[in-house]
Amino acid sequence: MKTLIIGASGQIGKMTTAKLLAQGHEVVALVRDKSKLSDLPQQGLTIIEQDLENDFSAAFDNCTQVIFAAGSGASTGADKTLLIDLWAAKRAVDFAKDHKLAHFIMVSSIGADAPDNIESSIKPYLVAKHMADEQLINSGLDYTIVRPGTLLNEPATKKYRIKRPESRQDAVISRENVAEALVYIAGKDSKTSQVFELFDGPEPITSFID
Amino acid sequence: MKTLIIGASGQIGKMTTAKLLAQGHEVVALVRDKSKLSDLPQQGLTIIEQDLENDFSAAFDNCTQVIFAAGSGASTGADKTLLIDLWAAKRAVDFAKDHKLAHFIMVSSIGADAPDNIESSIKPYLVAKHMADEQLINSGLDYTIVRPGTLLNEPATKKYRIKRPESRQDAVISRENVAEALVYIAGKDSKTSQVFELFDGPEPITSFID
Repeated sequence: MKTLIIGASGQIGKMTTAKLLAQGHEVVALVRDKSKLSDLPQQGLTIIEQDLENDFSAAFDNCTQVIFAAGSGASTGADKTLLIDLWAAKRAVDFAKDHKLAHFIMVSSIGADAPDNIESSIKPYLVAKHMADEQLINSGLDYTIVRPGTLLNEPATKKYRIKRPESRQDAVISRENVAEALVYIAGKDSKTSQVFELFDGPEPITSFID
Repeated sequence: MKTLIIGASGQIGKMTTAKLLAQGHEVVALVRDKSKLSDLPQQGLTIIEQDLENDFSAAFDNCTQVIFAAGSGASTGADKTLLIDLWAAKRAVDFAKDHKLAHFIMVSSIGADAPDNIESSIKPYLVAKHMADEQLINSGLDYTIVRPGTLLNEPATKKYRIKRPESRQDAVISRENVAEALVYIAGKDSKTSQVFELFDGPEPITSFID
């Protein structure tokens, strides 16, 4: 099993890469600047340097599954939201189909299910994430779409909830908890297609995914 | 037959509205600001004032077909490209399905078929148009997607070509020629689903659409 991580130098992507390597996985890390991964152990790691605005299909060769953890972020310009969060994700879905990958794990966002339910400056971002998720859902690929709440820089608790908390202040999750969940999903032998939001909470991930 | 025109105060939308009215069609014009249509004849015209970022589904009531001529334009911010060119178009497709409209006519853009083939500042716009067109193509609705070349403010010649000219300078079309083509398509009794680029040229529209 070889896992392609798109956006491996992002905060969640890099933590996920490191944790998969620590568990002995083979990882192909797709990044724009490989120097950002120089502090990772090299055992099991293949780094491919490519801009997601160019053709990155070769990164899929011989991979079993893919984690799309790239993101322009909600704070970049909306042109990059269109080119990365939507278009690069759409192309990743196409490449995954071409390469017959067994599973596509998408890092999405809370709110991507229904962009109209929010009136804020991040609505355009949620539109892009929604359309990318729909592209995956309709692709015929097996998939897991994880929609984390507001991201925090806390250490992992490895404890979660998937029911959206009533208070927006509680609808949070640490990036490392997201990474731990991705590692768990990537490491499972059998996967079924599912979409869920994810927050810090009281229960282990196995409560929701097994 | 009643035709909904989304974006009826835009240049192409307004010319299309005027020409349909002149031919005796019933038109529902969806605009954000109805004062922009005050110089149109009122016979046969229903104006609905609504922002495309809000719920505009009521505009579809009792309509037979829809022309989506709205556009944030290639020069607005990409956040509006996401919210109007992509998201409002996607919702229009959903509303058209809900209302079982007989035909959806989309004003798209040259290049929307393959955004990766262009490296320019309009690529994010073409991504949005591409995704909107795909949404329509996969909707199950009958559709016509018109992809005009670079738009000019010349009077209509009512003469066209659909084969993309070799020279980019020739890949142009007057807005009024686009409007004339839309009126022709809207006025036809039987319509089959098709996608084509459209340019000023030597032949009548019937050479390509009949």
